[in-house]
Amino acid sequence: MNYPNGRKNGTQKLRSQNKAETTFSNRGMTLEEDIELSNDYYRNANIAIVHKKPTPVQIVNVDYPKRSAAVIKEAYFKQASTTDFNGVYRGRYIDFEAKETKNKTSFPLSNIHQHQIDHMYACQQHGGICFIIVKFAVFDEVYLLPASKLFLFWNDQFKGGRKSIPYDYMKAEAELLPFHYQARIDYATALDKLYF
Amino acid sequence: MNYPNGRKNGTQKLRSQNKAETTFSNRGMTLEEDIELSNDYYRNANIAIVHKKPTPVQIVNVDYPKRSAAVIKEAYFKQASTTDFNGVYRGRYIDFEAKETKNKTSFPLSNIHQHQIDHMYACQQHGGICFIIVKFAVFDEVYLLPASKLFLFWNDQFKGGRKSIPYDYMKAEAELLPFHYQARIDYATALDKLYF
Repeated sequence: MNYPNGRKNGTQKLRSQNKAETTFSNRGMTLEEDIELSNDYYRNANIAIVHKKPTPVQIVNVDYPKRSAAVIKEAYFKQASTTDFNGVYRGRYIDFEAKETKNKTSFPLSNIHQHQIDHMYACQQHGGICFIIVKFAVFDEVYLLPASKLFLFWNDQFKGGRKSIPYDYMKAEAELLPFHYQARIDYATALDKLYF
Repeated sequence: MNYPNGRKNGTQKLRSQNKAETTFSNRGMTLEEDIELSNDYYRNANIAIVHKKPTPVQIVNVDYPKRSAAVIKEAYFKQASTTDFNGVYRGRYIDFEAKETKNKTSFPLSNIHQHQIDHMYACQQHGGICFIIVKFAVFDEVYLLPASKLFLFWNDQFKGGRKSIPYDYMKAEAELLPFHYQARIDYATALDKLYF
């Protein structure tokens, strides 16, 4: 989870010399990396405790060489049964999934799976705060969409509705997350506005 | 997460024919399996949403054969940065670790890692409910110990204190979790008593 102090921090420092503290462009890393750096910052600054869940793997064959670490020789990727991120913020359980799209006009719902919807719906029922973070790579814009709004589109698609969330809807109804030097994907500030 | 309907359910059924609904013996499965079955029950009964986190694995080499699933050819176990289980119950974030010991007189603190203590401490600071579930295999007894009590022993060991939690302390200060047919490790009921 914690990136070594080498490359990534170096990259950040170079950036901060050239850019204002808040900008909407030149994020550079993947959305997931940016969120993990934000989670690191939130943890170190004692703002929130959020972790990415490990990739689920079905381990079939493990080698135990003498005097060295066990080597997994055969394993397969499993479908995750939940979302990628969860944790605690201001006393609330939070749970979210992060997705990038190259699409310019909409976010295709095919990026999300039914079991993730079910998971977020259940967590919300129990008092959790659930949302998705969507990056429109072409515009280098990142949005936080509350799960309750996602559910509307999700359910509509099975009643003849569209199979994507329009970019214009995101612009109007989701929270744009500005890039910050420390909290690169500053979802906690958006949650303050939306839920507290 | 969801066990297939075969072996495990069969085992459960055989048990329920011979035993009262609540018993403290003959659990049979590993603690982790019992907790996962309890989580499944809690989810299906819409009582709590709790999942075990996947085992963290550092993937080094993946093979992508044509027309079949990617095969991980080389990977290593990584140390988890958090505890094994987390989720949401009655609007609260919950987070816990589960450990079995064969020791008859105490639970050795060497079963827990500093980073897990740090993680639980941080989660508790943010309003989460943190605890450990400890199984004394010899007695087939399972206890829930709130993290705040664990922290006392943890910190004491660095000031010349003992490096384990006495079984007698657990008996007196932790919650004994009775075996139930559905919630085999019924931690939610214990949480009701302790935190709500």
